[in-house]
Amino acid sequence: MSDKKNIQVCFTADQFSKYSDGKSTVVVVDVLRATSVISTAFMEGVKAIIPVQNLDEALSFKGKEGYIIAAERNAKPIEGFDYGNSPFHYINADVIGKTLVLTTTNGTKAIYNAKDHKVITASYINIDAVANHLLDEHNNIIILCSGWKGVFNLEDPIFAGSLATLLLSSGKYDSNCDSLFASRQLMNNSNGNIFKFLSESSHRKRLKSLNMENDTRFCLAPPVKSTIIPILEGSKLVIL
Amino acid sequence: MSDKKNIQVCFTADQFSKYSDGKSTVVVVDVLRATSVISTAFMEGVKAIIPVQNLDEALSFKGKEGYIIAAERNAKPIEGFDYGNSPFHYINADVIGKTLVLTTTNGTKAIYNAKDHKVITASYINIDAVANHLLDEHNNIIILCSGWKGVFNLEDPIFAGSLATLLLSSGKYDSNCDSLFASRQLMNNSNGNIFKFLSESSHRKRLKSLNMENDTRFCLAPPVKSTIIPILEGSKLVIL
Repeated sequence: MSDKKNIQVCFTADQFSKYSDGKSTVVVVDVLRATSVISTAFMEGVKAIIPVQNLDEALSFKGKEGYIIAAERNAKPIEGFDYGNSPFHYINADVIGKTLVLTTTNGTKAIYNAKDHKVITASYINIDAVANHLLDEHNNIIILCSGWKGVFNLEDPIFAGSLATLLLSSGKYDSNCDSLFASRQLMNNSNGNIFKFLSESSHRKRLKSLNMENDTRFCLAPPVKSTIIPILEGSKLVIL
Repeated sequence: MSDKKNIQVCFTADQFSKYSDGKSTVVVVDVLRATSVISTAFMEGVKAIIPVQNLDEALSFKGKEGYIIAAERNAKPIEGFDYGNSPFHYINADVIGKTLVLTTTNGTKAIYNAKDHKVITASYINIDAVANHLLDEHNNIIILCSGWKGVFNLEDPIFAGSLATLLLSSGKYDSNCDSLFASRQLMNNSNGNIFKFLSESSHRKRLKSLNMENDTRFCLAPPVKSTIIPILEGSKLVIL
């Protein structure tokens, strides 16, 4: 009998109910940019992150001692918020020991939809740490791509392909999931240059039009790596 | 000003509401096997096809003069039905002038979900005729992959990639759709041998386990081509 565990890839936050089983470990991915921001904020000393669904909920934390608030909609920062959804907002910023309240277009929704599972978040910044943790744990895995407003995006499946390849190469996992197969094909097609490969993707064009290409480069090929694995405990992401 | 029209690819029947605009032409795809069966049945002389959502609705036509009924669930034919979801059931069969009432796991659901649009159905059997019709019409297009029970499958996006490539090469269309980009990547990766490429796909394995590989070969590389374009008129598919 095979004791291999199973890996699946879900392409959008909205489709998670089709995959949910209450038992698998869920790896939430929003490479451009929420889960990259989450990795960065923890590296810079944030104590906890509260992902929330709407702007009002985030604003209710404004001015509270020890909290900072950040928001993004349609890739843009929102007036009235301390921070946006760029990793650069958090680097060398006054965030040590603070709790970050974050709401974004897609990533925070994916976290919310998976909240009845064990949820960790992944980006290219902490991919190796996440892979090692999953290999040690050896549970069934759902890689949950955030997508863009309910539709498929390219960057999250490519990341899913990168992570799945690390896991499958161990021989401890199996997959019979067409979206995982497609994710690995796309990752292989990117040929080690995801930034270039994504030049045709809708979200890279969106960030380019907003002069956010530095964010894209940072998230796809981060200059630093982190060993921090953010895990959802109740309503907060904390360091595992 | 560009007068190029837009092409999008929707990966599952359930996600259609994210793409629906009431105006685009919708091309429903369920290559393995519903839309291949639809192409074949029309070639063999069926007069009209009524796609229905459930078995009871299909059974209500049983024994009615001029009607034949067909059903499939989980790739298998259903007891009490004249026909299943294999194109071979219709070839040289007594179907001329009949109306076929068809219910399948995914394809008929996709047709139903798109019914407020102009809906045509496509398969490798009629891909050239469909492409030519779309080029003549020059409307915005949504290629609606049926998927498998709400999740991504491989074969329908590969077909979408084939069809989109025919359309985009005309210079009359544009796309900013990540799922179309991914579909074309997958189609290119199949390198002209979709049957082999799909050897890892969940549905080819499913059909193989049910001894239906001949169906798969027929649908992916049909020995015949059809100029018939099935179009939805009210509750019936008829010949355009």
